[in-house]
Amino acid sequence: MIQEKHQYNDYGTDYPNSRKVYVTGSRPDLRVPMREIRLSDTRRTDGSTAENPPVMVYDTSGPVTDPGFELDLEKGLPKLREAWIEERGDTEVYPARGYRPGDDGQGQDDGRIPFTGATGKARRAKSGSNVSQMHYARRGIITPEMEYIAIRENLGRQQAFRKIYCRSEHQSGLLTQAQTAAMRHPDHQHPGQAWGARIPDFITPEFVRDEVASGRAIIPANVNHPEAEPMIIGRSFLVKINANIGNSAVSSSIGEEVEKVQWATLWGADTIMDLSTGQNIHDTREWNIRNCPVPVGTVPIYQALQKVGDRPEDLTWELFRDTLIEQAEQGVDYFTIHAGVRLRYVPMTAQRVCGIVSRGGSIMAKWCVAHHRESFLYERFEEICEICKRYDVSLSLGDGMRPGAIADANDEAQLGELETLGELTKVAWEHDVQVMIEGPGHVPLQGVRENMEWELDVCHEAPFYTLGPLTTDVAPGYDHITSGIGAANIGWHGCAMLCYVTPKEHLGLPDKEDVKRGVITYKIAAHAADLAKGFPGAQVRDNALSKARFEFRWEDQFNLALDPVTARAYHDATLPEEEAKTSHFCSMCGPKFCSMRISEDVRRYAAEQGLAETDVIERGMKEKSREFSEQGASLYS
Amino acid sequence: MIQEKHQYNDYGTDYPNSRKVYVTGSRPDLRVPMREIRLSDTRRTDGSTAENPPVMVYDTSGPVTDPGFELDLEKGLPKLREAWIEERGDTEVYPARGYRPGDDGQGQDDGRIPFTGATGKARRAKSGSNVSQMHYARRGIITPEMEYIAIRENLGRQQAFRKIYCRSEHQSGLLTQAQTAAMRHPDHQHPGQAWGARIPDFITPEFVRDEVASGRAIIPANVNHPEAEPMIIGRSFLVKINANIGNSAVSSSIGEEVEKVQWATLWGADTIMDLSTGQNIHDTREWNIRNCPVPVGTVPIYQALQKVGDRPEDLTWELFRDTLIEQAEQGVDYFTIHAGVRLRYVPMTAQRVCGIVSRGGSIMAKWCVAHHRESFLYERFEEICEICKRYDVSLSLGDGMRPGAIADANDEAQLGELETLGELTKVAWEHDVQVMIEGPGHVPLQGVRENMEWELDVCHEAPFYTLGPLTTDVAPGYDHITSGIGAANIGWHGCAMLCYVTPKEHLGLPDKEDVKRGVITYKIAAHAADLAKGFPGAQVRDNALSKARFEFRWEDQFNLALDPVTARAYHDATLPEEEAKTSHFCSMCGPKFCSMRISEDVRRYAAEQGLAETDVIERGMKEKSREFSEQGASLYS
Repeated sequence: MIQEKHQYNDYGTDYPNSRKVYVTGSRPDLRVPMREIRLSDTRRTDGSTAENPPVMVYDTSGPVTDPGFELDLEKGLPKLREAWIEERGDTEVYPARGYRPGDDGQGQDDGRIPFTGATGKARRAKSGSNVSQMHYARRGIITPEMEYIAIRENLGRQQAFRKIYCRSEHQSGLLTQAQTAAMRHPDHQHPGQAWGARIPDFITPEFVRDEVASGRAIIPANVNHPEAEPMIIGRSFLVKINANIGNSAVSSSIGEEVEKVQWATLWGADTIMDLSTGQNIHDTREWNIRNCPVPVGTVPIYQALQKVGDRPEDLTWELFRDTLIEQAEQGVDYFTIHAGVRLRYVPMTAQRVCGIVSRGGSIMAKWCVAHHRESFLYERFEEICEICKRYDVSLSLGDGMRPGAIADANDEAQLGELETLGELTKVAWEHDVQVMIEGPGHVPLQGVRENMEWELDVCHEAPFYTLGPLTTDVAPGYDHITSGIGAANIGWHGCAMLCYVTPKEHLGLPDKEDVKRGVITYKIAAHAADLAKGFPGAQVRDNALSKARFEFRWEDQFNLALDPVTARAYHDATLPEEEAKTSHFCSMCGPKFCSMRISEDVRRYAAEQGLAETDVIERGMKEKSREFSEQGASLYS
Repeated sequence: MIQEKHQYNDYGTDYPNSRKVYVTGSRPDLRVPMREIRLSDTRRTDGSTAENPPVMVYDTSGPVTDPGFELDLEKGLPKLREAWIEERGDTEVYPARGYRPGDDGQGQDDGRIPFTGATGKARRAKSGSNVSQMHYARRGIITPEMEYIAIRENLGRQQAFRKIYCRSEHQSGLLTQAQTAAMRHPDHQHPGQAWGARIPDFITPEFVRDEVASGRAIIPANVNHPEAEPMIIGRSFLVKINANIGNSAVSSSIGEEVEKVQWATLWGADTIMDLSTGQNIHDTREWNIRNCPVPVGTVPIYQALQKVGDRPEDLTWELFRDTLIEQAEQGVDYFTIHAGVRLRYVPMTAQRVCGIVSRGGSIMAKWCVAHHRESFLYERFEEICEICKRYDVSLSLGDGMRPGAIADANDEAQLGELETLGELTKVAWEHDVQVMIEGPGHVPLQGVRENMEWELDVCHEAPFYTLGPLTTDVAPGYDHITSGIGAANIGWHGCAMLCYVTPKEHLGLPDKEDVKRGVITYKIAAHAADLAKGFPGAQVRDNALSKARFEFRWEDQFNLALDPVTARAYHDATLPEEEAKTSHFCSMCGPKFCSMRISEDVRRYAAEQGLAETDVIERGMKEKSREFSEQGASLYS
């Protein structure tokens, strides 16, 4: 049931007429956030009005958008999951490794900005324990995280089935499978095409558990990141998006990075990757994680490389292992690890147009070639799994051989590595470590589906997580779009998470506006994929917005948009007057000539004439056709 | 053969290092424009250099980008096709109908701005003649327009097969089928998936003729628009895009509209639709057409409606017919006519979320309902064809029942109308009138392919011309992207022309920047579709840009982009210094750490070690694996 809290407009100028609401699950501290968009009434031409139910949308913004909540960056976000983790009784708190000289790179220890609220402690599984969500799932345990996710994923479904949902509001926020089966209303939404993904009418906590147990979905949830609101990545669930942030050797400060975290999650990023490669890499990550309401991923080899002065050949397993511990203690929820870069794939890239473009891939390729041996990531993979299961860090198996150009798409290096990733997936699963698989990159449209099918096949249905893919290389400056096309397509075909691309890709570092454009573009791609797969309830927001548009409810149209600010600004650019937002016309046609208004007229006229019913019109047509016959008129049939 | 003309940089700041070149066909006045993008040399690490051949791209900008050409708006563009039309000897010049009081709307005759260079004359077929390109095609005649198109469509193919092309430069610009068959190099490009479209290795004038004769392609080419450079719309050819311009009752002047025509064609619009509904509708169109190097389409019912004071029910066949003549004399190349709006489809829209959103559709629906009879567009369709064949105006059969929301996609009203359009297509073809079919609108991703298949089926493979489609309704302000996703997909599946959508769609009137973003987004969609279908040579530009990227040839990367201005600006936002454009690093990783540089290192190292050859590396791996075995190391297999 939905707890209505406080006043409206807690989202300020970005989401007007929205408010944060929570659905409580089976325990009082299991409260799932969502954003409720309140709509105005429909004003009928006869003067009567009709209510439009509010639209609930998935909300990734975290507690900062709670009414009255004031973010204190120095304290970080509330530790939502701490009690759940503690009560499982399988973890211990211990003195953390913390920062060690050299962590930020050789000679880079000066000018640190340690996180103010640091406790000097970290949490890990007790010796011999495994605290991964997959481990619980496989033992039949439904964790609070799983129930949370079930409620969260059902938002759209509950709205699609609103009437019956309202009737059962006195019950739990969850409906039974039987209830929901009866509710499905085919008129609400187009049938989807899910390419073999399981898309139930209703997500139960047990369904979540089963998907995690099978490896088809992951819940990135490090025990040291209790601030994160649980979410799931898998093709049976809503398609997710990731936003990359992080400083580089060229620019940006800690403050800017934390601001980008808040900004990206406000607009809908489901996870954040901190890809910092510049100054203060340790502290930047700490500030980001403490203030991040969504899972955080990293590529630990980036930091490891800084520790050895940017000389890949100097990397060692011991140094890398230590970096994993350092980051796991901070609460990184998933590690991108390029363990699939095997020595034999490296020369396969020599004839490519763009060689190796994955940073991690090129680092490991250089290491492999320099030492003429398989990488420590591959050889020590089981040891990596041992670390992951102590903290519940999910593995995102990196595609070090991913194509960096259309020309290089779907080649033997890429596919060879993918097979190795499938092999490593099985190894991780033996440890009950959660795994997803990273994918390309650059793929022409006709190659998208086969990429997805290969991944499902050789990686045993582990969730796929792709960058784009870009469907052409001819539009630098617009690669959010070239890749948004590929992302929507691969999401439709089963990709579980889409890593965003900003307009600055290949050219420069994204600023706040670029981050927003990347996130919104990827929300579009993910939602287009959700509609195409036929997620129950996915079309609720589309329908509500279309209805608002048809009824000239301009404010509702803006407020239902993924980006209300831009929608309003574009409208106001042509018709800035306040009354234009309540008038029954728009700038495209002006006040006299308007297809939507004519269409309203037609509808009213048809109703007046009794033409709204098909049998009536058919009767009319029969009369008409008699007339035609009498006139001897022959139409083109 | 390519005539090198004048100096570089005729494209000024928008296309640096580009110049206009022409390929001459079988007659000296048959000169096909293209834009040549000159590239810098590759600098190898050993200090040697290698040339990069220039890349030719399809050019829609018209003579304004010719070196030395100065556009005189008051004279209009040169009449490229006039001699071809005249020498066919089947047309007559006669005193044109010109402007008549009321043409701009009742009481709107004041304040006219007549085109300065008006002659008061127009051209039409001699009595009893038919001057449509389809009519010539069906009689086996290859027109200069057809040859022009063959050369134009082959640009990419010629580059893909460059070496042999260069050797035969002393011959005609066209190669024989046999020559080209031998040239195809599978490494250059991924195989496409063309869904049954005929994609020959090389386009001959005879192939063009055959496609036009069959109705699978059209050449919009009114005898009164000799300024337009011939182009073709059909699924065997490169996917085209249309940009809508036009004033509205709310805003914009003639000068702004002509500027938008130049702007849209500079960035790649293949046709322009003038959808004006405001003041000076007659003169605006005249100025636009006289200065437009691409075919121009209109929706004549818009002007007809203005003539009757915006009261659809007052429309008559006589008034509409007169409007067609008025516009055909001005040189409109294709008419959108909503002749498929039959009375029986109107009530099918009453239960839609968004009713009828097509302006033309709603006008005709209102007329049909008001008069309770079939529209004059449907009943007088053969008379419309009679006009079209006298001027060679192509028909774009409008989708008056197109869905205006995801909710309304693929419904009975839409499909019913599509069947009628198929019926009308056959009628038009009996008159040798060229036809394309307009399509939606709003379609979820999983419904795109079936839309295309229906159209091919019921409209007998007439070219499809769709608006988008938008794949979701939740992102006003970003509908260039929601629809770009749909456009790329439907283009891939066979849609011949994509009508652009700007970011202002549903919200306001596009300004110049919006027009550019719409055009570039649709160039991306069309090109992604071309790659996916496997057009020979489509990947040349992608490959050249990727190679420039890998080699840190920043200027080449910008100049090869669809929008060099934005690409450069985004790069400069992070690294504005001039030397950053020649340095071997970028802002993402900075000077020390760079995956592309590491990848170069790997490539060099691999070559030094003799590892670049697969057999060498395999030999190395065998030794390696013996070592592993000796150590008893077991990897995860």
